Amino acid sequence: MSKIKIGIVGYGNLGKGVEAGIKQNEDMDLIGVFTRRDPSKVKIASEGVSSYHIDDARNMIEQIDVMVLCGGSISDLPEQGPYFAAMFNTVDGYDNHAEIPNYFNIVNKNALASGKTCIISSGWDPGLFSINRIYAEAILPYGKTYTFWGKGISQGHSDAIRRVKGVTNAKQYTIPLDSAIEAVKRGEQPELSAREKHKRVCYVVADEGADKAQIENDIKTMPNYFSDYDTDVHFISEEELEKDHSGLPHGGIILHYGKTGLNEEHNHTIEYKLNLDSNPEFTANVLLAYARAAYRLNKEGITGAKTVADIAPAYLSIKSGEEIRKLFI
Amino acid sequence: MSKIKIGIVGYGNLGKGVEAGIKQNEDMDLIGVFTRRDPSKVKIASEGVSSYHIDDARNMIEQIDVMVLCGGSISDLPEQGPYFAAMFNTVDGYDNHAEIPNYFNIVNKNALASGKTCIISSGWDPGLFSINRIYAEAILPYGKTYTFWGKGISQGHSDAIRRVKGVTNAKQYTIPLDSAIEAVKRGEQPELSAREKHKRVCYVVADEGADKAQIENDIKTMPNYFSDYDTDVHFISEEELEKDHSGLPHGGIILHYGKTGLNEEHNHTIEYKLNLDSNPEFTANVLLAYARAAYRLNKEGITGAKTVADIAPAYLSIKSGEEIRKLFI
Repeated sequence: MSKIKIGIVGYGNLGKGVEAGIKQNEDMDLIGVFTRRDPSKVKIASEGVSSYHIDDARNMIEQIDVMVLCGGSISDLPEQGPYFAAMFNTVDGYDNHAEIPNYFNIVNKNALASGKTCIISSGWDPGLFSINRIYAEAILPYGKTYTFWGKGISQGHSDAIRRVKGVTNAKQYTIPLDSAIEAVKRGEQPELSAREKHKRVCYVVADEGADKAQIENDIKTMPNYFSDYDTDVHFISEEELEKDHSGLPHGGIILHYGKTGLNEEHNHTIEYKLNLDSNPEFTANVLLAYARAAYRLNKEGITGAKTVADIAPAYLSIKSGEEIRKLFI
Repeated sequence: MSKIKIGIVGYGNLGKGVEAGIKQNEDMDLIGVFTRRDPSKVKIASEGVSSYHIDDARNMIEQIDVMVLCGGSISDLPEQGPYFAAMFNTVDGYDNHAEIPNYFNIVNKNALASGKTCIISSGWDPGLFSINRIYAEAILPYGKTYTFWGKGISQGHSDAIRRVKGVTNAKQYTIPLDSAIEAVKRGEQPELSAREKHKRVCYVVADEGADKAQIENDIKTMPNYFSDYDTDVHFISEEELEKDHSGLPHGGIILHYGKTGLNEEHNHTIEYKLNLDSNPEFTANVLLAYARAAYRLNKEGITGAKTVADIAPAYLSIKSGEEIRKLFI
């Protein structure tokens, strides 16, 4: 079997997760890691794999089947997505929901011109949660879909707390509220405010002598991030933060309630729930399954930008159609 | 918008569920119901819709876009699946897991010859559960998938109890065991026997003067159906059975546990859970979403037999690709 030759662009948490994930997929080989840093200073965990400057990727078109783009959605992917689509099959986790249609169009144009296949916005949300929203709405059109996130670390909210005066370090957990989940399951089809869906729990290390009451108030009243939520603030030591809150867990629930019957007399719930120890490693594994799909679609001559909505489940599996029918259907 | 013209073959619980489901899908019209009975004696709930003898379907090829086959998997579908595939796009819920590969091949041959698109083994298991097994195994290959059924009525087991001497009527619930579900979630990757995964609870109406101890023993020791499980038998009156156990609820859980990380140090669970008031109506709605997919695929010239593994989620949705990217991704 000739293996799928994978390149990784960006060697942060997500890129390292992709590296670990490749070892779990026996039809994949890691060819190289591409970075904007000085590649000689980027030490790759996998033996025999080199790091390259991102500008050298253009000379390696023949050596790489799929580039997994592991940069951020704010500044990296808007540039790297279209750039690599002009040369490589790609997969990314672009997650700026409002901008996805535009991003799709730009990547699509370049991918069609290069004859490559580029799967955007993979991962779990967008990604697995997206397809569960699609399936649920298609199957129970008389109904309503709710997305809950957590319990998990929100990087953006943790960063926001760190910018508060007097804060040394912080982690923020987003926690879905059982009361909301239960109301949806009971079929109430509630209209839920931000405050009714999630709460926010913050673990904060304060500077020595800082005014904790002021910090707590600054966090709880911060617009967009916290003011619309019930927020708990706990002050702890740097050691406690490191010991108890250094992981990157996350997860969430897609919950769809719908009715059937000539008189809408029957109730149904569809629930999709993720419980993840490591958000970046799980996301990485999703990207790799879609990298397999991009590789196969391209071999079949299907090019352009795609989202998870456009990919049949079989394309993600290492197994053949025959094996799938035998083992999974 | 020109609507998708649907025919229903078989007017039992599932066929009636399809009829109700069509009313929830504004891009679909019910054209006719096809039956092996005398059609003049089959009263269709929908106004203006006629019933036809199943043999008349062959004269209506131009009038129907997709035939939804609602017969049973034991004797109806092995005959009707290939027969209709030679004339119509079809969707069915063939659920004899061991025979799916053979059934696929036979339907595929006829569908390729007729230029039609036939989606087999849709519904929830096989169907939605199948694709969740595929997604989960592709994303977390270092892991294990477990399927739990229930709480729900098993028609086959209820029928088996009714054949016991001295039994007037009966309903059997399959119930997944929390102890097993929790062990999977804890990451123990247990090897679970039938008894450890599910228990069976039976509500039995005994003939007047029947030997209840004998009935209970006959049920609990019945091979294949009950002897491998812990089984509870409750004797109730016909009125109680009618009042409390006349519905057709079902559901179940696909639970996948997997590890990631260079040292497999992170644990993840993916859980897909259905809680259904009406098994046949929910199944019917799944068939209809795949009927939409069969119709579209055929328009694109993609023919032959397909399973849910071969269908991209977008094909199930009434929404366009652009709307999907905006609303669901």
